[in-house]
Amino acid sequence: MPLITFQPGGQTIDLPRGSDLLEAARQAGVEIDFPCGGKGTCGKCIVRIVSGDVDSNSLGVLSAATVSEGYVLACRTKILDTPVRVEVQEPIGREGGKFSDELDDIQLIRHELLPEDYQYDPLALKWVVQVPPPQADHGLSDIDRLTRTIQKEWGKTEVVYSLSVLRSTADLLRQENGQVTITLIRTPQRNHIIDIEPGDRTTRHYGISVDVGTTTIAVQLVFLPLAKIIATRTAYNDQIECGLDVISRINYAQKPGHLQELRVRVLRTINRLIKQVCSGHGVLPSEICNGVIAGNTTMVHLLLGLNPEYIRLEPYTPTLLEAPYLSAEEVGIEINPQSWIYIAPCVGSYVGGDITSGLLCTDLATPTDQVNLFIDVGTNGELVIGNQDFLLTCACSAGPAFEGGGIDHGMRAAVGAIERVEIDAVTGQAVCQVIGNVRPRGICGSGMISLLANLFVNGWIDAAGKLDRSRPSMAIDTSERIARYIIVPPEQSANGKAITLSEIDIDNIIRAKAAIYSACALLLEKVGLQFSDLQSIYIAGGFGRFLDIEKAMIIGLVPDLPREKYRYIGNSSLMGAYMVLVSQEFRQHQLNLARRMTYIELSTEANYMNHYTGALFLPHTERSAFPTVHAFLASTSNKA
Amino acid sequence: MPLITFQPGGQTIDLPRGSDLLEAARQAGVEIDFPCGGKGTCGKCIVRIVSGDVDSNSLGVLSAATVSEGYVLACRTKILDTPVRVEVQEPIGREGGKFSDELDDIQLIRHELLPEDYQYDPLALKWVVQVPPPQADHGLSDIDRLTRTIQKEWGKTEVVYSLSVLRSTADLLRQENGQVTITLIRTPQRNHIIDIEPGDRTTRHYGISVDVGTTTIAVQLVFLPLAKIIATRTAYNDQIECGLDVISRINYAQKPGHLQELRVRVLRTINRLIKQVCSGHGVLPSEICNGVIAGNTTMVHLLLGLNPEYIRLEPYTPTLLEAPYLSAEEVGIEINPQSWIYIAPCVGSYVGGDITSGLLCTDLATPTDQVNLFIDVGTNGELVIGNQDFLLTCACSAGPAFEGGGIDHGMRAAVGAIERVEIDAVTGQAVCQVIGNVRPRGICGSGMISLLANLFVNGWIDAAGKLDRSRPSMAIDTSERIARYIIVPPEQSANGKAITLSEIDIDNIIRAKAAIYSACALLLEKVGLQFSDLQSIYIAGGFGRFLDIEKAMIIGLVPDLPREKYRYIGNSSLMGAYMVLVSQEFRQHQLNLARRMTYIELSTEANYMNHYTGALFLPHTERSAFPTVHAFLASTSNKA
Repeated sequence: MPLITFQPGGQTIDLPRGSDLLEAARQAGVEIDFPCGGKGTCGKCIVRIVSGDVDSNSLGVLSAATVSEGYVLACRTKILDTPVRVEVQEPIGREGGKFSDELDDIQLIRHELLPEDYQYDPLALKWVVQVPPPQADHGLSDIDRLTRTIQKEWGKTEVVYSLSVLRSTADLLRQENGQVTITLIRTPQRNHIIDIEPGDRTTRHYGISVDVGTTTIAVQLVFLPLAKIIATRTAYNDQIECGLDVISRINYAQKPGHLQELRVRVLRTINRLIKQVCSGHGVLPSEICNGVIAGNTTMVHLLLGLNPEYIRLEPYTPTLLEAPYLSAEEVGIEINPQSWIYIAPCVGSYVGGDITSGLLCTDLATPTDQVNLFIDVGTNGELVIGNQDFLLTCACSAGPAFEGGGIDHGMRAAVGAIERVEIDAVTGQAVCQVIGNVRPRGICGSGMISLLANLFVNGWIDAAGKLDRSRPSMAIDTSERIARYIIVPPEQSANGKAITLSEIDIDNIIRAKAAIYSACALLLEKVGLQFSDLQSIYIAGGFGRFLDIEKAMIIGLVPDLPREKYRYIGNSSLMGAYMVLVSQEFRQHQLNLARRMTYIELSTEANYMNHYTGALFLPHTERSAFPTVHAFLASTSNKA
Repeated sequence: MPLITFQPGGQTIDLPRGSDLLEAARQAGVEIDFPCGGKGTCGKCIVRIVSGDVDSNSLGVLSAATVSEGYVLACRTKILDTPVRVEVQEPIGREGGKFSDELDDIQLIRHELLPEDYQYDPLALKWVVQVPPPQADHGLSDIDRLTRTIQKEWGKTEVVYSLSVLRSTADLLRQENGQVTITLIRTPQRNHIIDIEPGDRTTRHYGISVDVGTTTIAVQLVFLPLAKIIATRTAYNDQIECGLDVISRINYAQKPGHLQELRVRVLRTINRLIKQVCSGHGVLPSEICNGVIAGNTTMVHLLLGLNPEYIRLEPYTPTLLEAPYLSAEEVGIEINPQSWIYIAPCVGSYVGGDITSGLLCTDLATPTDQVNLFIDVGTNGELVIGNQDFLLTCACSAGPAFEGGGIDHGMRAAVGAIERVEIDAVTGQAVCQVIGNVRPRGICGSGMISLLANLFVNGWIDAAGKLDRSRPSMAIDTSERIARYIIVPPEQSANGKAITLSEIDIDNIIRAKAAIYSACALLLEKVGLQFSDLQSIYIAGGFGRFLDIEKAMIIGLVPDLPREKYRYIGNSSLMGAYMVLVSQEFRQHQLNLARRMTYIELSTEANYMNHYTGALFLPHTERSAFPTVHAFLASTSNKA
């Protein structure tokens, strides 16, 4: 007899008396968020006990009134007597895995970011060699002859063979008159022979570039002989169920077995995406012989099964920044087991390989006096400022809002996502642009920015993000405790339910944008520069196919600067991983950049909180910081 | 209902009609030898069909009379109708695994062979390092700090970490104030960190040296801080069931799944011996962090799962002579999974790492003008002749006789083995010296040589090895088709059965000694030298604790030279493996020797067969080649 039943999903689980309700939900496959890692501080894991006996210690975080209605924090509740019936909120904005494949192929790479004169020189090469037959009295083994043939072409660099290659060499050297295709991974120290095949197989040569984000994972399949991207797939990171941001994941990892679980979850997501990019293109995962993975420092640790705890504790020290040579088999990536999994170098605890990869797509990677700024908005926001003389970097906790996380109807930039919203100044109703021109399923980052800016410009929300309850509008629903803006009424959405943005959602977005903006301000302060000293500002992230910079400025996500200084470069982490995959030159360049960067830990910067608090308004508490925006707002309200 | 029953063991197996009888025996766990690899040419797999219907094609190899008695070759026989009852001969000389452990600790290493001034410098080191604590703003990861600490001591050599070390580093660096013990494997190219432990663990530091012979495997446990051997165990190679010599094994490996089976069998033997050397000494196999394996080229191929076929086929080309850096986990050796398994370099198809290891124990490894000869008598006999200017080597197929294989009551040099036999000139009866002074179980190589020489000196056998049927003796049994010499009557043996040496056994021993001697002769011929030009002759092998050189000369195993030129060095392969384990100097020296050696393939030397045929007598057909022996024989017969 199942003890615990979750509504509305109907999932059941049978657990002993005294079990944690949060753990029960996890085991039952019910998604409950707990960004604080189950410490009872964030209040996100609120559920309602419909019936049954529980022991809960939720007062203090929840009000007495709320508790009296049966609400508890799942993380502070134990099951006492059964059956227990629990009502959970509808899962917050995520539909990971629920979209069918063919809907989900948004092109994230911008080929125009690739330098025109780059040197095609992939980490993994396939190369046909003609190995002379064995001869009596020459005293050379099969491997000796193969090594000599390789060294004739590639110099006297040490040649290293995997055992699986050694096992097939003898037969293959005798199969097609000594003609074999070897797969070669060249590092500065040695050449690794990771595969050997009979005859000429150079046209079956694939690599993958992977962006492992806290919230979203993207995998690209690359046909290496032409450096051509032939498929891209993204999905939510299966780790999301264990916490929404890196701190929650690190906390989650502390319990026995949880680090391994997190590792399995991220590998499961990556390997599922690999299968997806391969199927339909006639490629077997085993034909992929190289992978480049870019991820933040915590994601790298979780992927490799390294204890991330010390990333979170002062003085914030990761186990490693540069990973050693690791094979796909060791890491757990399901491609050719001997493939090199190259992990993009990290800079500090909260600035990782996603940033060093992203930098490759910007002018910060080229020798120039001009000071440029790079902002990558993910679940964490990371920033780099600098030129040829210095590179300063820091990270801030933005939260997953712009990727759809923590927002009731948020979603990734995939088919069905609202990517732009205009507001009728009179009725307050929304006119939406949807990716794929289908019925909308939710709203992605670029849509949120567009919506929030337009609501603000038209006065439907105030500078604190509160909806205007004084002006009647069909689009504003004040029937529940928390007011909501109805973006799409039920009859127009894909699933027959309204798509809304609540005041809590708006607050989340404002906190996210404030975190980013204040980190920009602090970084400039550190180097004694003004916003106006910046030559270019590169914005990367999973907002969507485009980012309306004017709107981002209106909400105060980015500083008030001339539009032409901005460049939205999308998922630059994935693009950078691709660049490293196809050229040793970029790999070396990235390593040099990573080693040159100076990392600033924001949590020890006293002034950061002042900047942040000032930024918790639209666009900012300091009007003078956003002169253009205020001038525009004034002109709009004059017109209205 | 089982179809096939084997006598006398009573093993049964149920197989479909048409199955091979040899395969049936193997599956039933019944030991039947087939040195020819099941080709029906050696006649060794003879069995008798007691009842049941079989289809056999054994005529030609077996006489019509033998076939009429129900004898067939198992390899040429298929099961037709059931039940079939098969009588197999008692297993030939081997008792692998049947001895209890404590009986089996014969010391095989001769410490006097170790140069006095060698440099203690083991491949694997344990070293205590004090890693400074992490600091804010220094930008170093845990691994960065560890690497810097290591490089401060060991220079700027690249430091490589295994994933398992990376996974425990963060916690361990914080456990005992940054004091950790690292296990370091130093190769010329890089330092591998294969283990990290908290605090000072340098006193738990072990290695193993392993001699993988075709017939016998020996494992030594070494306490590395003192280079002290703390246990030695030997056992028959579990591969024996798949053929007695390397050619049979290579043939056996050609069927699907058999290569893997051979690999599993040799690993099983090695891993069993590792457990044995560890237990009783309070050592865990996981505390062993380095292994050095010396084996012939075929054994190396089978151990690594490399197809050995091309070793047997012209132009006799192995997959490899020098193995790459391989971990215990990859190879399948059950010690610390990250341990380096160093495989002693081979020279050619039939001269392997056992010989390059053995050479380290001889003056052939030191700079000298004097020409020396090294003879290693195993299942194959290998020889090296040379000085500082040249090293010439070859191998001959001696068979496993001197290790107890193919001899009815042969056994390894273990407790219970007859190691020396005197013959009463009048009665012809034997007086035996037994290892451990227990009731004898069988006879080892040194005993066979001693027995054969004394039988010959006393005229109980002639120069062709036939027993004298004309002189009545209690010790000679002519009741069966094949005459036997009774070494130990039933009432004096350990198991109540007589220990005998048949004329077939004698023939095997003569063929073994002829192979060795003729290889010596050919090798000298190749360099234009005489036996008398040799300064020293080193004899290695598993004969026993000692080798009576005079007796070996009398039977013509070794040339007729002054006694003082000879040195019996026992299992020099194991000794050499030990030397490599404890000193990088020996490893480098061995590599240089291996690369300097010139390998001669005897099977393509037309003159070898002439030498061999001449040596198929006691001591030799050419009396002039053994003047001292003949003078002695003459003096003995004069006395009699």
